[in-house]
Amino acid sequence: MNVYFSPDQRLHAPTHEVFGGEMITPFETPDRIDQVLARMETIGPVLAPRDFGLGPLKRIHDPAYVDFLSGCWDEWTAAGFRGEAIATVMPSHRTGRRCPTHIEGKIGYFAFSGESAIMKDTFQAARASANAALSAADAVSTGERAAFALCRPPGHHCMTAQFGGYCYLNNAAIAAQYLRDLGADRVAVLDIDFHHGNGTQDIFYERADVLFCSLHGDPDRAYPFYLGCADETGAGPGEGCNRNYPLPPGTGFGQWAAALGDASRHIETFAPDVLVVSLGVDLYERDPQSFFAIASDDFTEIGRRIGDLGLSTVFVMEGGYAVADLGVNVEKVLTGFGC
Amino acid sequence: MNVYFSPDQRLHAPTHEVFGGEMITPFETPDRIDQVLARMETIGPVLAPRDFGLGPLKRIHDPAYVDFLSGCWDEWTAAGFRGEAIATVMPSHRTGRRCPTHIEGKIGYFAFSGESAIMKDTFQAARASANAALSAADAVSTGERAAFALCRPPGHHCMTAQFGGYCYLNNAAIAAQYLRDLGADRVAVLDIDFHHGNGTQDIFYERADVLFCSLHGDPDRAYPFYLGCADETGAGPGEGCNRNYPLPPGTGFGQWAAALGDASRHIETFAPDVLVVSLGVDLYERDPQSFFAIASDDFTEIGRRIGDLGLSTVFVMEGGYAVADLGVNVEKVLTGFGC
Repeated sequence: MNVYFSPDQRLHAPTHEVFGGEMITPFETPDRIDQVLARMETIGPVLAPRDFGLGPLKRIHDPAYVDFLSGCWDEWTAAGFRGEAIATVMPSHRTGRRCPTHIEGKIGYFAFSGESAIMKDTFQAARASANAALSAADAVSTGERAAFALCRPPGHHCMTAQFGGYCYLNNAAIAAQYLRDLGADRVAVLDIDFHHGNGTQDIFYERADVLFCSLHGDPDRAYPFYLGCADETGAGPGEGCNRNYPLPPGTGFGQWAAALGDASRHIETFAPDVLVVSLGVDLYERDPQSFFAIASDDFTEIGRRIGDLGLSTVFVMEGGYAVADLGVNVEKVLTGFGC
Repeated sequence: MNVYFSPDQRLHAPTHEVFGGEMITPFETPDRIDQVLARMETIGPVLAPRDFGLGPLKRIHDPAYVDFLSGCWDEWTAAGFRGEAIATVMPSHRTGRRCPTHIEGKIGYFAFSGESAIMKDTFQAARASANAALSAADAVSTGERAAFALCRPPGHHCMTAQFGGYCYLNNAAIAAQYLRDLGADRVAVLDIDFHHGNGTQDIFYERADVLFCSLHGDPDRAYPFYLGCADETGAGPGEGCNRNYPLPPGTGFGQWAAALGDASRHIETFAPDVLVVSLGVDLYERDPQSFFAIASDDFTEIGRRIGDLGLSTVFVMEGGYAVADLGVNVEKVLTGFGC
């Protein structure tokens, strides 16, 4: 299958992340890309994405949010701040009806989390990452069985108008919407990243045309917290189109695969025209952010079972922070799928 | 007038604050207390607060929040985090219905901002600070014209169940509620801190028995953002009992005093039995967090005008970060008031 990636995706390279009350070196780094690229020879040609412009981004994201991303760094530095741009104060409860003018307030208005930095070229890198997802969607819409968007920065935590969790544009949601706009009646998004895809869920929560299924660490104990419980099943026209599988510490392949089986039945019933897979490999047992017991070899079987759905499939890269094993685990999913 | 202060209030002494994308030395430090204490000889005796227990705190704060404050540090260190406890990810929008078990999620559930750290003795210091406010309220309720609670950590940003802005318990709100519980029919809170008292506003927003008036830097451009606009006038039974005076950069004494005059008329109409003043002196022109042009000598006149209200008055210390001038500016307010 075709692999889509742009060198511009490396431009986002923050040096700081707030974690555990400290400034640490970020988990999410540009060299994650290189580990995956190094294993793509067995998968297919690595192609440059084309530029889809801002239109498809604004089908998912609030235009004011896109403007914020575009201008954040200049406003941040103009305000005299010396670090990378991160949010501290955020709206809550009765607050948040207005977006402040000052960047310290604006960045919190457009964030749900303060670990993730914005720097000079973050928007350019995020756009390139979204273009990779759109290019993969384009390939599948024109007849390819599958394509792999080597997205980075990742996307599934990003909401309509809030960044966080290393995500600035929701690549999977942008791809799903683009497929809808190209004529697909129904799109399913299967999110297997260790972390709940809170952004993707929130974006499609009231829609009946996009099914969202997520397998993830129980948000009672794992980032991003607050969303991802089993009783969040969608709302309004989207009731029944959101399926969460929160899984406990120590979850091994058997338990995980049983959840995948249930999600697969929902996907089959939904009968989508196309599948988007949010492919995080941080469910891996050696991942520093995981509490699952999923072995490297399990990824081949994960790919095979996704392939068994028999759907045209757009793979969109999400998380994975056991950097040395990142490429091989992604390769196993894609070869297991059968590319 | 009596001054209330406990050495336990020094126990909260975080070494880190997230500001401008960097870890900096906190603005809010224990030596703020010493600068004020050094100028209290002209004001009155410095007395130890008595311990009011958790009861008066839980009249304002959600018991689950008080439990969180009490256990936060032990849970944080047990989770293996090495820094002081700060929030990064927080609930927003459709999220936040559940408090997670893991402390990383729990601290965000109980926070609106990630600059403020919790450490081992934060709860003890915050309790001591609240006891100072309660002791001052007690003195006024038993016939003193006025008393000064040298509170620190400050309180006015703290909501029913969310800390932030260096505030962990809302001392002014706790004092106001205590005065109500002692028999005052109506209590007015006048907040002159440079920053909007978003916590105090939120706590009393739907109540008709507590009038809240706040003069502050326009939240479109100043922390805590999101709340503090003039059209936030209260809700339900509290409609009309919330008065905000957001003021622009460069505000000098004349403009500020005109707003105080308007607030004073609302207070006179409300006819409270007692006044609680959230006394931040960070409106001072040399304060690193201020964009007002209020000179040190203006504080005497500010105190005089508050005294002209002719009300029994509980002064509760809030912010002020021009540390060297902190004591003299507080002293001027209290001597201007006439103690």
